[in-house]
Amino acid sequence: MLLARIAHPEGVAFVAVEGDGTDQVAAEIAEHPFGKPTFTGRRWPLADTRLLAPILPTKIICVGKNYADHAREMGGEPPENPVIFMKPSTTVIGPGAAIKLPADSTRVDFEGELAAVIGMPCRDVPASRAKDVILGYTIANDVTARDQQQADGQWTRAKGHDTFCPLGPWINTTADPADLAIKTTVDGEVKQDSRTSLLLHDIGALVEWISRVMTLLPGDVILTGTPAGVGPITEGQSVSVTIDGLGILTNPVVKR
Amino acid sequence: MLLARIAHPEGVAFVAVEGDGTDQVAAEIAEHPFGKPTFTGRRWPLADTRLLAPILPTKIICVGKNYADHAREMGGEPPENPVIFMKPSTTVIGPGAAIKLPADSTRVDFEGELAAVIGMPCRDVPASRAKDVILGYTIANDVTARDQQQADGQWTRAKGHDTFCPLGPWINTTADPADLAIKTTVDGEVKQDSRTSLLLHDIGALVEWISRVMTLLPGDVILTGTPAGVGPITEGQSVSVTIDGLGILTNPVVKR
Repeated sequence: MLLARIAHPEGVAFVAVEGDGTDQVAAEIAEHPFGKPTFTGRRWPLADTRLLAPILPTKIICVGKNYADHAREMGGEPPENPVIFMKPSTTVIGPGAAIKLPADSTRVDFEGELAAVIGMPCRDVPASRAKDVILGYTIANDVTARDQQQADGQWTRAKGHDTFCPLGPWINTTADPADLAIKTTVDGEVKQDSRTSLLLHDIGALVEWISRVMTLLPGDVILTGTPAGVGPITEGQSVSVTIDGLGILTNPVVKR
Repeated sequence: MLLARIAHPEGVAFVAVEGDGTDQVAAEIAEHPFGKPTFTGRRWPLADTRLLAPILPTKIICVGKNYADHAREMGGEPPENPVIFMKPSTTVIGPGAAIKLPADSTRVDFEGELAAVIGMPCRDVPASRAKDVILGYTIANDVTARDQQQADGQWTRAKGHDTFCPLGPWINTTADPADLAIKTTVDGEVKQDSRTSLLLHDIGALVEWISRVMTLLPGDVILTGTPAGVGPITEGQSVSVTIDGLGILTNPVVKR
C-alpha cells in the first residue's frame, strides 16, 4: 500500500494512493495509518489534491556516514558503529514545498536518503525483527548547511533549519529496502547515483542500534544516510531524489 | 504561578500549585497551561498527587559548554557561538522517576541545568523579546553517557537514552533567570554550585540563536548548559538539582 497525507478540498487526511499514472486516486483513511487502516469511503482524484509530508514524526533520527564512498568524500573513514544525530520535527516539509536557504549559511547541500517510518511503539528491537516495527519506507532529503556543520562540530544547527527535511511522496508499506536504486538530481543533472545495498549498517542494524537507546514511536522516521555525490543547491534550482518503487521527491529551492 | 502536571486519583492534569510547604494545593487547569489558563475548580492536596514532568516537549534543544568553567573541565575553551544539540522527547521523566543506566555505558554523568519552556509558536525572536515567548523556567538534568559522547563525536546517543532528561518539579512563570543559584548534589554531597549569571550566552541570546534556525513550539524546552563539577552517578544513588525559586528536582538512579 502507498500511504500518503494530502490536502483535499475539505481538509487534510491520511490516504491510500491507488491506481497508476494520471488515474491515481486517494482513498481516505479514518484517523491514522497505523495498524490495519479503515477507510471512510471518501475518494478524490490524486491530481485534485496536494501531497503533504506523509507523516509528522515525533522524532527524526539520522545516521551519519553510512555509505563508504560518502564517508570518504567527507574526508574520513566510515565509523565502526552507526553515528546518530537528530533533526527537529519542525524541519519537515512535503513534496513540492520549498527548501528555504538561511541567510546566515554560505553553502547548503542536498543529501538524498532512504527513510524508514516506524509503525508501533518499540524498544530493544533485534535486527531480525526490525521489519515488524516498520510501517514502510519513504524518501528524505537531509538538507545540510555545510558551513555550519563544520563550524559547530555538533550537526543540529546545520541540519535543523525549518524546511531542511523534505519527506515523501508517500510511504510504501510493501517495499523491500535491501537493494533499491537511489538517485539525486539537481535541475535534471544526476548528482548521486547509488544503491541501498551499499548501506554499511542496514535497516535492521539501525533499528537495533537506535532502539537500544530510545523508545521509538509510531511515525518516527529513521534517515539511513546519504551516498557519495553531495553538493550545493542554490536559489531557483529544483532537487529531486528518486528511489526505486518509492517514487520521486522533488523540492524547489528559494531564499528565506 | 507554579505550573505542574500531576497524576491525581482520577487521571492526569495540568495544575497550578498554590500555597506553601505541606499545605500546597494543586488546582486543575482546563486543557493546557499556555496563554491565560482557566481552572476547572477541582483541587487536590499536592501531597495526595504525584508530580510528573511539567511539560511534554515536541523538542528539547540543549546548549553545550555555556559556562566557562565547565568548558575548561571538559578540556577546551568555550565556543564563541552557542553550540546546540537535541535530546529526543522520549528522554523526559518527572521528579522522583528513576534515571536508568544503560547496560552498554561505563560512565553516566549528571548535568544540572536551568531550562526555559517556550509558551507560543515563534521564530526569529530578538534577544530583547525572548521573555515574551517564554512560559517560564524549570530545572533539568542533562544526563549523559560520557563514554558514548566521547566515542561518537555526535552527542545524540550519549544524551538520548530513555530517562536521560529529568524535568521539574514545576514551571515558575514569574522567575527572573538572570542570577539564580544552581546546585547539584549526589546523595547530599554538593557537586555543582554556581549561578545562572555565569551563563556565557544568556536566555535572550539563546532564544535568538535557536529561533533563527527553527520554529519553536509551545512546550519546547531549552536546556541552557551545565556549570563545572559534572561527575558520575551510579546505581542506588540519588541526584538532586536545586535552583533558587524553581524548587528541587530529585531522581534516584537504577540499572536498566
